[in-house]
Amino acid sequence: MNINAFTVDNIPMITKGDDIAEIICQRTLLEEYDIIAIASTIISKAQDHIIDPLKIVPTQQALNISKKNGMNAEFVQAVLDESNEVILESPIFLVRHHCGNICINAGIDQSNVADGLLLLPVDPDGSAKKIKDDLFRLTGKKVSVVITDTNGRAFREGQTGFAIGAAGIMTHHDWRGSTDLFDNVLEVANEAVVDEVAGFANCLMGEGNWGMPVVVIRGLDLYSRNDGVGAVYRSDDIDIIKKALKNF
Amino acid sequence: MNINAFTVDNIPMITKGDDIAEIICQRTLLEEYDIIAIASTIISKAQDHIIDPLKIVPTQQALNISKKNGMNAEFVQAVLDESNEVILESPIFLVRHHCGNICINAGIDQSNVADGLLLLPVDPDGSAKKIKDDLFRLTGKKVSVVITDTNGRAFREGQTGFAIGAAGIMTHHDWRGSTDLFDNVLEVANEAVVDEVAGFANCLMGEGNWGMPVVVIRGLDLYSRNDGVGAVYRSDDIDIIKKALKNF
Repeated sequence: MNINAFTVDNIPMITKGDDIAEIICQRTLLEEYDIIAIASTIISKAQDHIIDPLKIVPTQQALNISKKNGMNAEFVQAVLDESNEVILESPIFLVRHHCGNICINAGIDQSNVADGLLLLPVDPDGSAKKIKDDLFRLTGKKVSVVITDTNGRAFREGQTGFAIGAAGIMTHHDWRGSTDLFDNVLEVANEAVVDEVAGFANCLMGEGNWGMPVVVIRGLDLYSRNDGVGAVYRSDDIDIIKKALKNF
Repeated sequence: MNINAFTVDNIPMITKGDDIAEIICQRTLLEEYDIIAIASTIISKAQDHIIDPLKIVPTQQALNISKKNGMNAEFVQAVLDESNEVILESPIFLVRHHCGNICINAGIDQSNVADGLLLLPVDPDGSAKKIKDDLFRLTGKKVSVVITDTNGRAFREGQTGFAIGAAGIMTHHDWRGSTDLFDNVLEVANEAVVDEVAGFANCLMGEGNWGMPVVVIRGLDLYSRNDGVGAVYRSDDIDIIKKALKNF
């Protein structure tokens, strides 16, 4: 297997209303089954999904959490507004974002916006599907699209890239039922390939002013007719870590 | 940035005493700063780090845990023997392996061994360093080596590749202190690039009888004079999730 992965260079500063698919197509020639990984930040910027913290009025809940974790109450309110569920208030503020992703601070990013708080995209799966469809319209190529964000992990220092939106890509390679080299049936390998791809793309993207928000991975065919990243989110009833944190 | 990643094909079935570095060099031409990702399974096989479950005598602790989580007592004992610390006994058996990695069942794999339980390598960092040095001796090229294993994640379904051993590679790209596109100083981006690389390599490796245990990543220079993956393991005093699980 031989893979090529590259950043799409000269992506301009993205602002409200920019057409991400068009911007990509103007800068690279896509091929059938390419995987296009896109940093969630530029989706949010194109959506102008940015709020001015001065316009936020914290609720009592936000004020209470702010007292516990020492974070700014307006910021806490912004996180609550973006979330379905609070997992842990302090010492880290861990929530489930509306899109399903469990992450610190609802993924709200204070970097790389001129002013205001950059929120996660409104509907990352919807954005992935729209960009996939736009790319097909513009190029005639069937491609996979992954929207990435940077999250912390359990037990391990540092953040890595994860998929928070996807279209036209298998999220998992389910090896269960296939056999190993000695004909034993594999019992536990359900590989989250969409996150492995998102992580590597994130590695190429970089952060801050080195940021290259679009990466193309070519030669690794994970194309699927299915859209959506939902299968990566563990359901509540089997999520031991979430239960333990909520009881902590 | 333009990256090439490929599997090293025709790796034979690895058995006791095989020289992994030599086997790699016979099958591909390495270049300076290549990253060589190696599945931990073949390191363990070369070490013959395999135990016969019939020879294990479970302790009382193993019998107690076996009653709780329904796992075979000999298997539980094998996990305990490979671990420093039990985080959770049931419904998942989560431990800290001697090497530092917190994982289910001490990473013991029952697939791809003719008989017996395949353990993690004795000292993954040591193996990575030895292979890095051997590769330098054989090729004259400075390369990075990552030993990968497949682990589950918090909140997310499916497993991905992680680094459990490393040599000649930076584990993190610490962006903190660098500035974003608007000259704001980044506060929270400490990117665990070694795991992003391990995950992507794992995606190319596959599982079971499709297994390609060696992947070369070329063009992504993460070379460092530092050896060891230890920096990825969160220290106990700040590990909230571990504390919550131990109190669960």
